[in-house]
Amino acid sequence: MNIDGKDYTSIWREPSHPNAVVVIDQRKLPFVFEKRVLSNSHMVFQSIQEMWVRGAPLIGVTGAYGIYFGCLEMMHEHKGQEYLVSVSNKLLSARPTAVNLKYGIEKVIEAVNKFGIRKGVTEAALNAADRLREKEINRSSRIADHGVSLLRQIYQKTGKPVNVLTHCNAGWLACIDYGTALAPVYKAHEQGIPVHVYVDETRPRNQGARLTAWELATYGIPYTIIADNTGGFLMIKKMVDIVIVGSDVMSINGDIVNKIGTYLKALAAKDNDVPFYAALPLSTIKRDMNDVFNEVEIEERSSNEIRYIEGWNGHNIESLRITPKTSNVLNYGFDITPSRLITGIITDAGILDAKKDAILKILNQSY
Amino acid sequence: MNIDGKDYTSIWREPSHPNAVVVIDQRKLPFVFEKRVLSNSHMVFQSIQEMWVRGAPLIGVTGAYGIYFGCLEMMHEHKGQEYLVSVSNKLLSARPTAVNLKYGIEKVIEAVNKFGIRKGVTEAALNAADRLREKEINRSSRIADHGVSLLRQIYQKTGKPVNVLTHCNAGWLACIDYGTALAPVYKAHEQGIPVHVYVDETRPRNQGARLTAWELATYGIPYTIIADNTGGFLMIKKMVDIVIVGSDVMSINGDIVNKIGTYLKALAAKDNDVPFYAALPLSTIKRDMNDVFNEVEIEERSSNEIRYIEGWNGHNIESLRITPKTSNVLNYGFDITPSRLITGIITDAGILDAKKDAILKILNQSY
Repeated sequence: MNIDGKDYTSIWREPSHPNAVVVIDQRKLPFVFEKRVLSNSHMVFQSIQEMWVRGAPLIGVTGAYGIYFGCLEMMHEHKGQEYLVSVSNKLLSARPTAVNLKYGIEKVIEAVNKFGIRKGVTEAALNAADRLREKEINRSSRIADHGVSLLRQIYQKTGKPVNVLTHCNAGWLACIDYGTALAPVYKAHEQGIPVHVYVDETRPRNQGARLTAWELATYGIPYTIIADNTGGFLMIKKMVDIVIVGSDVMSINGDIVNKIGTYLKALAAKDNDVPFYAALPLSTIKRDMNDVFNEVEIEERSSNEIRYIEGWNGHNIESLRITPKTSNVLNYGFDITPSRLITGIITDAGILDAKKDAILKILNQSY
Repeated sequence: MNIDGKDYTSIWREPSHPNAVVVIDQRKLPFVFEKRVLSNSHMVFQSIQEMWVRGAPLIGVTGAYGIYFGCLEMMHEHKGQEYLVSVSNKLLSARPTAVNLKYGIEKVIEAVNKFGIRKGVTEAALNAADRLREKEINRSSRIADHGVSLLRQIYQKTGKPVNVLTHCNAGWLACIDYGTALAPVYKAHEQGIPVHVYVDETRPRNQGARLTAWELATYGIPYTIIADNTGGFLMIKKMVDIVIVGSDVMSINGDIVNKIGTYLKALAAKDNDVPFYAALPLSTIKRDMNDVFNEVEIEERSSNEIRYIEGWNGHNIESLRITPKTSNVLNYGFDITPSRLITGIITDAGILDAKKDAILKILNQSY
């Protein structure tokens, strides 16, 4: 993605930092754009734990580079393979429930084990991390290629800019490039299809107002931030052509776990005949999960995310209390949207119905 | 309502201020509890325009006292009746779209005209304003009496604390006492029916997290603040027994205009078989309005309500920017919930279906 004339992804290597990777400190967006050079496994741990990086694919790739640094440290300090085990455990502890983190770490550990602990193993680890990064970029790129057809159809029908509503941030900051929900939007923009995005603020962490808005602004795509309360009324007023959201988990029958509030937008889309799509790589689908309502425990997050809010005071990022001091609060991070409300899913292998038969068929073709 | 052992309403007279009324500066809640003594018509104008007071019934009653002060000033300064006309116009300009403000002003002007401009007219004006205040209290009290039956039925069935979800602030701060949506909750609490309220934060102005939470806290009613995104998921999880909201306008066929986001909660209630009630005095129903979708123009409010947020920094109320600096935003103040999603309406004349026949019947009985 292009920022001030320079191409960016959410994690990259630079010739000026040969044994390092560079990320964007996403905690400070949209107020401050600050790059961070990660050059050892502890910094990778810190970047994941303190959420300089977030988003499942990005966390996975960052963790993969963490194992590469672990290899560098192991070889440089003449440590045994048990050092890599301790680095893996430490990295995993930074976000214990992140499935992609585990996956990213395992991919590089596998490559190391295959190569053996000898000269050249750090290159093998680096190659494995680079391959994972490329794989994630390809997944997003294919989601973009498939999804753009939906936006093109709408544009061909109406002849007007396509109004997309999205929730949370499922753009390139969460992935490596393109994103999931936003991937078709970027592709449409590249192909000259005019597009405008209604961005749900996405309380309580405001990933929409902060990250999605920043992404779209830097890419020059027209967008409008709305309170999470507003999307339903926009659909009543026929101001939304399509809703596209990401997904953290999809069960085999097409129910999705996604950012809290997704379900409400899906209900409004259904009530107003607005197509509602979830965009996700096939790797997000849990083949052995039949009942997401009983098999996923929805994370309850810190009450302080509701009690306090971060913003820009003109000089710094500051935090204010926005509730009575002693209020009880409840902060579920995600909700569940049943497949009956989902028009279809945009995957790296094509667009399909959110139905078990269609999902099983494509999974069987792809693996 | 009882605060620290003292009974409060949202506007009252005190023996220590014989020619004044006292209000709470609602802009500063829940961070600072500050009373304001209004002793002339300009201060009433200011209190309405700067939103020290808000909520349709309270604005109406405050405006009524404004005309009383106008009378005092007219008699004291030996001005003609044209002075009252200018005071009326000035007060109306403070919130031009507030129907209750117009109504409150007219009620006192009528009393003045009936009495004539002579000694004793200020007492006549004061009596008219006092009567309007009493009338509003009685309306809320009757809504409370009718609505509590719903909560009692749920409690008798489940034997557990009744979980109410509400949106925005339709409590005693918006009215004079009790409120509308919260009136049955207060009455239940008084009658020993255990009740717990899920309070929608209500972006972008956060009336739920600020005012409803403060009201419930001061009255000792258990409550939990949630992001507006959360209510649907709570209904899926069967954590909500009943949704009760207020209403700014109801058409003769039972559609309501209420705070933006109400529609989404009504959809979720319908999808999960949770009863959804609107609580309102009959005066909120527009007998000649058949099509709220075409006859009400929904107010677009300042973009700064989305771009900035107010909170407590430990010493003062402060404002922070929470979006990119130049973001486009859209801020509809209200949305429309169609009657098909409304289980029933709780009015000062009883509980009835949100259907034209039932509404017409009760209006014809009551007027």
